[in-house]
Amino acid sequence: MNISSLQKVRYAYKPKLPENLSGSVDDIAVEFGSPTEAISDKEEIRGIFKNTYGKPLATFTKGKNKKIKRELKVGVILSGGQAPGGHNVIAGLFDGLKKGNSESTLYGFLGGPGGLIDNKTIILTHEIIDEYRNTGGFDIIGSGRTKIETPQQFALSLKTAKNLNLDAIVVIGGDDSNTNAALLAEYFTANGSTIQVIGCPKTIDGDLKNEHIETSFGFDTACKTYSELIGNICRDTNSAKKYWHFIKLMGRAASHIALECAFQTQPNICLISEEIEEKKLSLDQIIDQICDSIVKRSENGDNFGVVLIPEGLVEFVPEIKKLINELNDAIAAEEKSFAQNSNFIDQLYWLSTRLPESSYRAMQMLPPEISHQFLMDRDPHGNVQVSRIDTEKLLVGMVEKKLAEMKEKKHYNGKFSALTHFFGYEGRCAFPSNFDADYCYSLGFGAFVLIACGLTGYLSNVKNLVSPAEKWIAGGVPLTMMMNLEQRHGSKKPVIKKALVDLYDKPFKEFEKKRTAWAVQTCFLVPGAIQYFGPPEVCETTTVTLKLEHCL
Amino acid sequence: MNISSLQKVRYAYKPKLPENLSGSVDDIAVEFGSPTEAISDKEEIRGIFKNTYGKPLATFTKGKNKKIKRELKVGVILSGGQAPGGHNVIAGLFDGLKKGNSESTLYGFLGGPGGLIDNKTIILTHEIIDEYRNTGGFDIIGSGRTKIETPQQFALSLKTAKNLNLDAIVVIGGDDSNTNAALLAEYFTANGSTIQVIGCPKTIDGDLKNEHIETSFGFDTACKTYSELIGNICRDTNSAKKYWHFIKLMGRAASHIALECAFQTQPNICLISEEIEEKKLSLDQIIDQICDSIVKRSENGDNFGVVLIPEGLVEFVPEIKKLINELNDAIAAEEKSFAQNSNFIDQLYWLSTRLPESSYRAMQMLPPEISHQFLMDRDPHGNVQVSRIDTEKLLVGMVEKKLAEMKEKKHYNGKFSALTHFFGYEGRCAFPSNFDADYCYSLGFGAFVLIACGLTGYLSNVKNLVSPAEKWIAGGVPLTMMMNLEQRHGSKKPVIKKALVDLYDKPFKEFEKKRTAWAVQTCFLVPGAIQYFGPPEVCETTTVTLKLEHCL
Repeated sequence: MNISSLQKVRYAYKPKLPENLSGSVDDIAVEFGSPTEAISDKEEIRGIFKNTYGKPLATFTKGKNKKIKRELKVGVILSGGQAPGGHNVIAGLFDGLKKGNSESTLYGFLGGPGGLIDNKTIILTHEIIDEYRNTGGFDIIGSGRTKIETPQQFALSLKTAKNLNLDAIVVIGGDDSNTNAALLAEYFTANGSTIQVIGCPKTIDGDLKNEHIETSFGFDTACKTYSELIGNICRDTNSAKKYWHFIKLMGRAASHIALECAFQTQPNICLISEEIEEKKLSLDQIIDQICDSIVKRSENGDNFGVVLIPEGLVEFVPEIKKLINELNDAIAAEEKSFAQNSNFIDQLYWLSTRLPESSYRAMQMLPPEISHQFLMDRDPHGNVQVSRIDTEKLLVGMVEKKLAEMKEKKHYNGKFSALTHFFGYEGRCAFPSNFDADYCYSLGFGAFVLIACGLTGYLSNVKNLVSPAEKWIAGGVPLTMMMNLEQRHGSKKPVIKKALVDLYDKPFKEFEKKRTAWAVQTCFLVPGAIQYFGPPEVCETTTVTLKLEHCL
Repeated sequence: MNISSLQKVRYAYKPKLPENLSGSVDDIAVEFGSPTEAISDKEEIRGIFKNTYGKPLATFTKGKNKKIKRELKVGVILSGGQAPGGHNVIAGLFDGLKKGNSESTLYGFLGGPGGLIDNKTIILTHEIIDEYRNTGGFDIIGSGRTKIETPQQFALSLKTAKNLNLDAIVVIGGDDSNTNAALLAEYFTANGSTIQVIGCPKTIDGDLKNEHIETSFGFDTACKTYSELIGNICRDTNSAKKYWHFIKLMGRAASHIALECAFQTQPNICLISEEIEEKKLSLDQIIDQICDSIVKRSENGDNFGVVLIPEGLVEFVPEIKKLINELNDAIAAEEKSFAQNSNFIDQLYWLSTRLPESSYRAMQMLPPEISHQFLMDRDPHGNVQVSRIDTEKLLVGMVEKKLAEMKEKKHYNGKFSALTHFFGYEGRCAFPSNFDADYCYSLGFGAFVLIACGLTGYLSNVKNLVSPAEKWIAGGVPLTMMMNLEQRHGSKKPVIKKALVDLYDKPFKEFEKKRTAWAVQTCFLVPGAIQYFGPPEVCETTTVTLKLEHCL
C-alpha cells in the first residue's frame, strides 16, 4: 500500500469521543424517551413497519450495562457516494466491538449493499482498520448503489446475514440507504430473525438532517475542500481582475453545499435552488440577477467576480423542470422510435412534433451544446442525467447574450470574460477534517452501543455538535420517525424526508442579509486548505451552517 | 478587509531566513565570482547588454557592510500570472529595507509593469504589508501582463522612476518579465541613470530554473494544491471503481507541474509534452498508450483510473502543432475574408481550400466541439488560444472511439466511462506553503541586499533548497548569464531560456522507471491538503522534483 506523509501522521490521530461514550463500555447504559411517530402519513407508515414503528428515542447515559460485553458478529455496508469519514465510522464501530469483547467480529460487505445480497465479505482485522483510520474514501470495502428492493433481494440478504451468524448490520448511507436500512430491519423482524439493523447518516450534500440529526457526516470536509478552491479562485480573480468565475458545486437536490461555501468565501453571487423554486424564477430572471451584479461591479471598475451554482439548479427552474419532465415522458412513450435518430438534428426534429410547444421553444432557446446534453447520456431509466448538464456554461452563454443586448442599448459598458469550474469529486474523498474524523468515529462507536443494547431500526446520532466533542451527546433515533410517504416511480413509498434549504431558517436568512453587499463589493474570504494541526480556530471548527442553526 | 481564521493565524508565521541573511544587516557583505557569459549567442547578447553584460555571480557572506544602512527608495512590480508567495517577496523586501533604514520607502506599482509606465503607485506601509504576510494572491498591488517594449515605454518607465527618486526597481516575474527586467537595467544604465533593477524568479510552471535558480517560487504550493485534488480523485475512483478521470493541469509550455503531481499522486498515466515532442508521437500513438493501460487494467477488473495531461500538450504533438501553425498562417493571410464566415460550417468550408490537405484532414478527424475551439476565441494576434482547447475532452473522445473499435474486434471487453477536470486557477493563489513562504521572503530580503550593494541586472537567488532554510545560500545571478537568442514575432530576441522537462535528468528518469507499474496497478498516493502546522514531514517538505534534482 502506498502512503503519503499526511496519511502516516493521520494514523496517529485519536478521534475524540463524547463523554457519554468514553470510559468503560460496561458503564454505558441506554435511556429511552416516549414512543415516536412518523413526521407525516403516520398510519400508512405504521402499516408498513408493523414490527419496528414508533420506537422511543435512545440516549446513552452512565449506568451498568452487563449485556454490552458479550461477543457480537456485525456486518457493515458503505452505501452510495463517498463522503469523508466513512472509514472512521467503521473504525469507531470496530473499536467499540473490540472494547466490548475482543472475540467480536466485524465483517465488511464488499461493494455496497450488493455485497450483502451476494454474500461478498471480508473480516475486518486490526491490521486492515489501522490502514484506514482518519483517511478519506470508501476504499476499505468499496461502496455501491444497489438497492435492496425485490423480495428475492430481501430474502438473499437475510440468508447472508444468517449464514454469517450476524447479530447486526450497520448501513452507512444517505436518506435512501437509511430508508432501505429501516425496511431491512422490519423485514428481519417480520421474518422472525433477531438480526438488528442500524444506520449512520452519511452524505456530503448535507440534506439528511432534522431535529435529531444535526448534520450528515462528510458535509464539513467536502464544504471545506470546495471553499478552499473557491477562496483561492476569489483571490486569483481579485489579483488578475479580468475574469468572472462560474463555479458549479456538487449536491444534487439541496443547495446546502453552495450556501455553506458562500458563508466561507463570500462570493458575489450564490444561487439557491430552493429559493428559485419557491419564487418560481424563470431562467431570464436568474440571468437578470447575475447581470445586475456584473453591471454594478463594472461601474465600479470591477470586471471580475465569482458566482456559485448548485448542481441541481436546472431541476428547480420551473420552465426547465417542465422541459425535463416532458422530454422524459415523450421519449419514454416512444423509446424505440427516438433511438432511431442518429444525430442531434434528427432528435430535435423528432421532438418538434412530440414536445408541447412551450417546451420545444425552451429547448430551442438553450445554447445548442446544452440542449444536446439534455438528449445524450440518458440514465438507465431513459431520464435526462441532470448531473451531466453544464449549468455553469448554460448560464455563461445566457449572460453573454444578455450583456451584449445591454451594451447595444448603452446600459452596460464593461468587459465580460468568464471561466467555468465544477467541483465535486475533489471533496468526496478528502482526509476527514478533525470534526468529521471525531463525528464519524463517535457515530460508529454509538452504532456499536445501539447494537449491544439490542436495538434495531435506529440511526446512530450525535447531538450538540457545535460544542467541543466531549460535550456531544450520542444516542439513537428510530428511523421510522423521520419518514413520510413520497411518490417514487409511480407509487407512494415510505422515505426519509430530504432536508432542503429552509428559506425561513437562520442560515438562509443570514445569507439574505449579506448577499446584497457581496453582489456589488468585493467581500471575498479565503479560508485556505483544511488544517488537521495547529490552533483550534483553524483545525477544530465546523460549518457556519451548523453554528447558525444551533447557536443562539 | 475580510479575513479567514487561517489568514489570521498565518499572519503570525515568521518566515525562516538563510543564515547568510540573518543577524544584523550590516554584517551581510557580498562576495563575487568570476565574470559570467550568456548560455549561448554570447556576442549578440553582449552587444545588446553593452553596460550590464557578463557580471559576476554574487553570494552573500559575513562581513562589514557600511553602505547597507543608507536610506533607499525602491519600487516593486508584480508581473504576469499569480503564484503563491508573491506577497512574501514584497514582505521580505520591505522588512529588509526597514531593517537597513527605517526611513527607506517601498513603492508598489499598481497592476503590473503598466503601473511603472503610467506612474501608478502606492507607498507600502507596515499596515499594508502586515495584511498580506504569508497570504496567496497578488492583490496587494495587483499584477499585469504589459511588457515594456517600445522606446516610449522605456522612456516613461525611466521618467516614473526618476520622479519617485528611486534607487531601484524589483520585478517579480517569470522568464519573460525577467528578460524585461534585464532590458530595463541596461536601458537605465545606458541612459546614465544609476537606478538599479533586480528580478525575482516567479512562476507556478516551474520552467524558470537553471544551475543557479533551483526552482521558481509558487511551483511548490501550486503542485501541492493540484496534488491534493488529484489524490482525492484517485481515492474517489478507487472507492467508486467506475470512472477514468482525465485531468488537465495548468503549465503552458513545460510539463513540470504534471510530472511533480505524478510523483505526489502516482496516477495511472501522466503525459509529458517534452517526451511526445522528442519522440514525435502522433495523437494516435498517445491514444494507443492510454488505451493500453485501460485495457490491461480492465483485464484485472479495474475499469477506473486517472490520467494527467499537461496544458500545453497539443502544441507538442507534431501534427497538431503543424495544424495550429498552418491555421494561424491561413487566417492571418486573409483575416477579413475569414471573419466573414458567420458559423463553424462556413469556417470549415473556407479552410478546405486554404489549409494544406494533411492539416485539413487532421482538423476533420478531431471531435467537432474541439475543432470548433481551434477556430473560436482567437487571441489579439489572431492566434489559436491553446489554453482554451479542451485537450482532456479531445483525448477522451479519441479514446472512446478507439476502445469501441477494439471492442468490435474483441480486443477489449471492459466498461469505460470518463470524467474530465482542469486545475489551474485553484492553485495560483493558495496560501503559500511554509517552503514558499520562507523561500519568497528570502528572495525578497535578498533583493534588498542586492540593491543595498549597488547591483543591477541581477536575479535574486537562493540555493541549497533541499536543506533546512538556515542552510540555504542567498545571493544574486546576473540576468544576462541565463540568456540566449530566440525567434519571437519574426526576429531574434534575447530571452531567458525556458527550462523544459529534461528527458535525461533524474526526475524524468525516475518517472520512467515507475510508470509501467503505475499504468497497470493501482499505486495511488493521497497527499491531502497543504499543512501549515504539524510534524515537519507534512509541513516542511518541498517538491519531489527538487529532491531528485539536488539530492544524491
